[in-house]
Amino acid sequence: MRRFVIGRGRNFLNRSHQQNLLSSSSSHCQSRFLSSTSVIDSPSSSSMAPTSSPAITVDSLNPKVLKCEYAVRGEIVSIAQELQTNPGSHSFDEILYCNIGNPQSLGQQPITFFREVLALCDHPSILDRSETQGLFSADSIERAWQILDQIPGRATGAYSHSQGIKGLRDTIAAGIEARDGFPADPNDIFLTDGASPAVHMMMQLLIRSENDGILCPIPQYPLYSASIALHGGTLVPYYLDEATGWGLETSEVKKQLEAAKAKGITVRALVVINPGNPTGQVLAEENQRAIVDFCKKEGLVLLADEVYQENVYVPEKKFHSFKKVSRSMGYGEKDISLVSFQSVSKGYHGECGKRGGYMEVTGFSPEVREQIYKVASVNLCSNISGQILASLVMSPPKVGDESYESYCAERDGILSSLARRAKTLEDAFNSLEGITCNKAEGAMYLFPRIQLPEKAIKAAEAEKTVPDAFYCRRLLNATGIVLVPGSGFGQVPGTWHFRCTILPQEDKIPAIVTRLTDFHKSFMDKFRN
Amino acid sequence: MRRFVIGRGRNFLNRSHQQNLLSSSSSHCQSRFLSSTSVIDSPSSSSMAPTSSPAITVDSLNPKVLKCEYAVRGEIVSIAQELQTNPGSHSFDEILYCNIGNPQSLGQQPITFFREVLALCDHPSILDRSETQGLFSADSIERAWQILDQIPGRATGAYSHSQGIKGLRDTIAAGIEARDGFPADPNDIFLTDGASPAVHMMMQLLIRSENDGILCPIPQYPLYSASIALHGGTLVPYYLDEATGWGLETSEVKKQLEAAKAKGITVRALVVINPGNPTGQVLAEENQRAIVDFCKKEGLVLLADEVYQENVYVPEKKFHSFKKVSRSMGYGEKDISLVSFQSVSKGYHGECGKRGGYMEVTGFSPEVREQIYKVASVNLCSNISGQILASLVMSPPKVGDESYESYCAERDGILSSLARRAKTLEDAFNSLEGITCNKAEGAMYLFPRIQLPEKAIKAAEAEKTVPDAFYCRRLLNATGIVLVPGSGFGQVPGTWHFRCTILPQEDKIPAIVTRLTDFHKSFMDKFRN
Repeated sequence: MRRFVIGRGRNFLNRSHQQNLLSSSSSHCQSRFLSSTSVIDSPSSSSMAPTSSPAITVDSLNPKVLKCEYAVRGEIVSIAQELQTNPGSHSFDEILYCNIGNPQSLGQQPITFFREVLALCDHPSILDRSETQGLFSADSIERAWQILDQIPGRATGAYSHSQGIKGLRDTIAAGIEARDGFPADPNDIFLTDGASPAVHMMMQLLIRSENDGILCPIPQYPLYSASIALHGGTLVPYYLDEATGWGLETSEVKKQLEAAKAKGITVRALVVINPGNPTGQVLAEENQRAIVDFCKKEGLVLLADEVYQENVYVPEKKFHSFKKVSRSMGYGEKDISLVSFQSVSKGYHGECGKRGGYMEVTGFSPEVREQIYKVASVNLCSNISGQILASLVMSPPKVGDESYESYCAERDGILSSLARRAKTLEDAFNSLEGITCNKAEGAMYLFPRIQLPEKAIKAAEAEKTVPDAFYCRRLLNATGIVLVPGSGFGQVPGTWHFRCTILPQEDKIPAIVTRLTDFHKSFMDKFRN
Repeated sequence: MRRFVIGRGRNFLNRSHQQNLLSSSSSHCQSRFLSSTSVIDSPSSSSMAPTSSPAITVDSLNPKVLKCEYAVRGEIVSIAQELQTNPGSHSFDEILYCNIGNPQSLGQQPITFFREVLALCDHPSILDRSETQGLFSADSIERAWQILDQIPGRATGAYSHSQGIKGLRDTIAAGIEARDGFPADPNDIFLTDGASPAVHMMMQLLIRSENDGILCPIPQYPLYSASIALHGGTLVPYYLDEATGWGLETSEVKKQLEAAKAKGITVRALVVINPGNPTGQVLAEENQRAIVDFCKKEGLVLLADEVYQENVYVPEKKFHSFKKVSRSMGYGEKDISLVSFQSVSKGYHGECGKRGGYMEVTGFSPEVREQIYKVASVNLCSNISGQILASLVMSPPKVGDESYESYCAERDGILSSLARRAKTLEDAFNSLEGITCNKAEGAMYLFPRIQLPEKAIKAAEAEKTVPDAFYCRRLLNATGIVLVPGSGFGQVPGTWHFRCTILPQEDKIPAIVTRLTDFHKSFMDKFRN
């Protein structure tokens, strides 16, 4: 199995690299051709340009953009949106979106304390009014004052420092210290509009050409493949081992690194998503130690996607940040370059629409830090509500605060419900013919494997569709359930999967299980070998 | 003068292009060298890698990042921040930030109605409470309900459609129609976290290599040069004519376009900033018509930065959107590719920290639109508060609404104060020896020209400083006034300028004028030829 995976990995890299070289050289040729044409026709070229239609065509767009794909909002979701706007076109009563980690779109309620503080910071002139005492908790009013006092001029409508408001970064650093038991420096924090822009920023800094590679897990969250494509680098895949619960083995990473080097790729960074997306596993601490040592030894930047750090559902696993793990190994600033990404979109709060997040950047020289700061400056700053929310997430109400009990009840209610939903869906998938599903130890997703019958694969090929997309499309049209085909995340070639979120509210889960079970039976009856 | 400008323009392009080619080829060489070293040393290369320090150095970063500059938060601002943290280091009582268009950081108050609606949308559970009636205006409560009803599931914490919430785009499109008198389509609106990400998105789509050029005004807002550098394209400068109030002549643009073509550059788009940044001029409608015709004829995408559309201070000028101008000329979707950028950060509201904005994208094929949508999707969506605010800005209170009068009073108070400040500062600059300053017809800036004495230029050279930065640094150290040197925006070589915002509150303006005047006199006494 290992050998097979590695062999496939090489092909993936190979193909990806060739595509890069091709698109890059064709882009060069194309622009040279266009400009020399202009010169030859000049000075009358302008009058020869088409005047009846705009000049930009898909063929003349940046080929890196054309190459980029993002399955989470891909074809299946477009079909779902069409179905939703044509209720007469289908028999089911509603579309059940299980495609995207967007909890509040499915009815999850925001944490009251967080929203109180945000509202007060948005309209501080009510803070002194007596009616406000009756509407808002005492600690939300106090927290809003604290935050306003941290903002120069109390101006929540001003651009902040390019890294984010200093006082909020102090709060976040204190939250990281409390979480890890190791010091955190507010100057290491870069607040961003969600985690995605932070990931783009690091890719932009690290990728110089298609000869630069980024090691990414397969399956991966397609932000990574999209961002690497947009920045013109090469994705170097390492495969997670489905047989051991999506295990991450450094021997596999090492082999892929060597294979990439042999192809002339300079590998610059290793992406680890923990808890895993789309795979839902939570790494064991000793596994993390091995990864840290590997990055240190190979001189790789460790890009740690830790946005699901609050989403752990099994008692035997615990989230450990890579920063904590590396510091507990005695490694400091000089030893390893480490970036940890955090977001307000995930966790128990799920505030996706607020676009808040940060990256904690450690182990880079002051000169490199200056470049990161410059890139952050070009976009001025991230949105202040998102910044405030990021500070709240890292510093929620404490024992004794008026909101503490209601906060805990809201948080625990959401997390325990997510754990129940994960288990119910996992069991449901495992009860279906030809489907096996690893445990969702964390994050918000299941990534079951489906053994598609040969007849189904042939039928998909006849429709020029990838087999897992063929399954997902039929499922959607029959039941309204929206999944994302595994091919959007990457998978061992010849295997098929799909990603299913655990986010529909609990009262919807039985319907999902029933519809899925019924559909799957009839699908298998139709296509069984 | 024209001839001189054009000659210099060629050099600018030339230099810029060579830099691109150099950095691009050195990047290729470097990565090839690194990877072949790895191969030669393999398999023991990993043990030979440095284990005592992280592997990323400035020299191994993306050279496009290294090349990018952003003066608005550059060296002078860093010095100001240091001075602020060491109050004992200087004699003045406060730092006077005139470097950045960030009104609320200098005491400008937000528009009450906008903040009421934002607060209610952040914490909708208070909408039904009786205390809320006493705290919020009736129309803000009604508007919050309207907006919540436009959001699926009233979920202000959910990711929205990648282009932004459909109902808010409907409102914005209606606002554009009311402004222009021509139809606007909500499907053409892409809501973004301020205008900057929208500009980056268009650069990412249009730039394939250093052979692709973007025509930009000089002086320009350095977001454009930074974004073009980050995306690896070539900035093709066209010079605004200072002698005619920063006039934009299509003959100059045409000459620069031809010069670029002759160098093998494919020019893809023309950036126009109206009202101008840093130059403050407002284009006349007939001038805009000529620009539209030019873009149509040359097949260029017109990138219209219209974020200062509310900021016009002189009765003889009026803002006309390029969309309105092109539609009034009878040009439609098939005739011209036009992108208009708008932001919540500017205008009378100045809500920079909210990071709201949109681009209206017209005249692109469905296939190209699909690519724009895909790039927007990779970042999921812009922040919902910013989206809501963008809809409010394009649809403020109307006659008869409870907030209408107070809204008008707040808006008009801010705009008339800005007009007074612009005039006072303009007059002050024009009264100084060797300084001439065009009128600030709009936007938030003055861009005076300073005739630096030869002795000052020599002294700057001795300090290895650009002369206008030399002036600005001495001004800062002597007075606490923070300006941005003209060299950060581009200027006709051999001329020197600085940008000064009109944003300090009115009670600060006399102190600024006095300090500036005193400093300038002593500077000239010291360096006069």
